[in-house]
Amino acid sequence: MCRSINMNIVISGLGIIGGSMAKAIKKYTDNYVYGINRSREPLDKALACGAVDEAGNEETLRIADMLILGIYPDAAVDFVRKNKDRIKKGCIVIDTCGIKSKICPELSQLAKDNGFYFVGFHPMAGKEKNGFDVSDADLFLGASGIVIPCDVPQEAVDTTAALLRKLGFGMVKFSTPEEHDRMIAFTSQLPHVLACAYVFSPRCIDHKGFSAGSYRDVSRVANINAQLWSELFIENKGPLADEIQTLIDNLELIKKGIEKGDREELARLLHKGKEIKEALGE
Amino acid sequence: MCRSINMNIVISGLGIIGGSMAKAIKKYTDNYVYGINRSREPLDKALACGAVDEAGNEETLRIADMLILGIYPDAAVDFVRKNKDRIKKGCIVIDTCGIKSKICPELSQLAKDNGFYFVGFHPMAGKEKNGFDVSDADLFLGASGIVIPCDVPQEAVDTTAALLRKLGFGMVKFSTPEEHDRMIAFTSQLPHVLACAYVFSPRCIDHKGFSAGSYRDVSRVANINAQLWSELFIENKGPLADEIQTLIDNLELIKKGIEKGDREELARLLHKGKEIKEALGE
Repeated sequence: MCRSINMNIVISGLGIIGGSMAKAIKKYTDNYVYGINRSREPLDKALACGAVDEAGNEETLRIADMLILGIYPDAAVDFVRKNKDRIKKGCIVIDTCGIKSKICPELSQLAKDNGFYFVGFHPMAGKEKNGFDVSDADLFLGASGIVIPCDVPQEAVDTTAALLRKLGFGMVKFSTPEEHDRMIAFTSQLPHVLACAYVFSPRCIDHKGFSAGSYRDVSRVANINAQLWSELFIENKGPLADEIQTLIDNLELIKKGIEKGDREELARLLHKGKEIKEALGE
Repeated sequence: MCRSINMNIVISGLGIIGGSMAKAIKKYTDNYVYGINRSREPLDKALACGAVDEAGNEETLRIADMLILGIYPDAAVDFVRKNKDRIKKGCIVIDTCGIKSKICPELSQLAKDNGFYFVGFHPMAGKEKNGFDVSDADLFLGASGIVIPCDVPQEAVDTTAALLRKLGFGMVKFSTPEEHDRMIAFTSQLPHVLACAYVFSPRCIDHKGFSAGSYRDVSRVANINAQLWSELFIENKGPLADEIQTLIDNLELIKKGIEKGDREELARLLHKGKEIKEALGE
């Protein structure tokens, strides 16, 4: 059977996210994928396993119907700025970054000025490890894909959302850069800050034999990609600092309850945790 | 084949821990189990499914070779105090509580004064839910069992450790009440405090669509048994308050690094998390 080719998709950056997008596109759709990567090895691996059809370069952007940026936030903005004249008119450009307020306005303006469409995108999936070697066609199955329309025509949003659903995303959540950054500070950045702060305890190194699932869960993401997350944290400084402070305040509240030693009062405070989880059906 | 009966074991308290101990003893050993429970329903269920061989009562303690206390810390001390004259000479009494400094000295003294042996025990296993209904013969497979010898003859320690290994514990970790409480404050109590403090954020209720594994892992144990944990927290007040303060200090440190905005400096700080996890082989 002849499989019709829908779009030429260029993916810049074949790490865990770009690599998984490439693999998922080839597994679940009929689009043609060009891969661009700073170093050669991930690209060779992607070509060898069929995650990309062909090596691309900046000139390939002239025929791209979609450009997916699988690179760090600063690099993503640099890439689009440098190639704004090469990106085909009408091309849909999507990023995959964990912050949005810092990058959406400039990318959106570059798009408007040069006749292509920028749609912000953040896949809520990942692993503790990074790089093409751990990329996976099924990384996104059931995950949420956050989409920031950034004032583009509805058709570009619909095309993006339709592609994401084909790649296995269980939910497409539409949001704004500000809401995204405030929520991500809580759902994703804070747990990473927390995991590091937690394992800094002098007790951590001796935990074996004394620990079980609770230790494992809180500490899991402490094995952090420090370069990437330090960029994400600093570029979302305001919401994240607020969220850390909220957590510190709530830790202080529980600590005071423990020190006061009124068991019923402490139980009432802790019971709120159960109520919140139950209200969420968790 | 006739399965020889080794010990008469009385289990007081058939919640998730006592119930799982009963089921594991019946599944993996040839001991005879008597069950005691404040309310009748869990006992009936335990009899019906064969987790206990027979309903026991305080008089059964006169023939018990081992008494396992599957009840809250205060209740455990009360139970032994009340029944000290009924507990058979030479009986090994083990608790299953999450705190030790508060209860080991008194239980140990009661044992010495009355001719039985008290060995502190804390199984590092559990679930988000409680009660006999979620108990499981295989709850302890691979888990660590912390044993606090409390100055009893080596034979009593060996008997306890041998039983635990038969029940599937992957590791028997010997400790002291003080070390246990300091380590548990970090490995188990702090993650529970943290999970509650985390879900108290006003952002929590809107997390869906913005969250993935990190949210799920940190918030998992927020669905807390508030009565039990408020007792455990207050009775381990000193080590736990210290551990919460250590975490707050480390959160402040990372927050300052974010606010300062020096990416390389922040990356160096966060990288310590990776180093600690890697040193632990995690």
